[in-house]
Amino acid sequence: MIKDNTVFVGNKPVMNYVLAVVTQFNNGAEEVAIKARGKAISRAVDTAEIALNRFLENVSKKEIFTSTEMIDTDTGKTNVSSIEIVLAQSK
Amino acid sequence: MIKDNTVFVGNKPVMNYVLAVVTQFNNGAEEVAIKARGKAISRAVDTAEIALNRFLENVSKKEIFTSTEMIDTDTGKTNVSSIEIVLAQSK
Repeated sequence: MIKDNTVFVGNKPVMNYVLAVVTQFNNGAEEVAIKARGKAISRAVDTAEIALNRFLENVSKKEIFTSTEMIDTDTGKTNVSSIEIVLAQSK
Repeated sequence: MIKDNTVFVGNKPVMNYVLAVVTQFNNGAEEVAIKARGKAISRAVDTAEIALNRFLENVSKKEIFTSTEMIDTDTGKTNVSSIEIVLAQSK
């Protein structure tokens, strides 16, 4: 079994990420982590909700974490919020 | 003690919501729930992170929920993701 797969959510259409998540479960993943930073956070939540409600059976939200990351930009360091939503096969 | 306070995060600058959360704790709230829908979700995470990292002591994230809500629009019903971040006084 493959463990600890991660899907990074960015600025592409949400269905791209939903497909990535569903594919990982179909390939035998027991858990998939959906991660995003900044404005993509809302798209990460959409990804998890759509995958769970429309595509995945026997999978549920296991944990949700939020944190703050410091990133370098042209104008210096800045803080950005991040989220990690872990989906897991129900036993 | 006041319980079960809620701050709804929308499209205003994030510090407005940070101030609302901090004020509720300063007024004696034991828990404050930060809620948002759609694109405001990332701002809700920012609100929680900024409040915790810069303003609040002895307060921590207690729970994070995400869900899907059906809302009516001009063009019919649509689904929108929502988040609820519960901050609570540490014992």
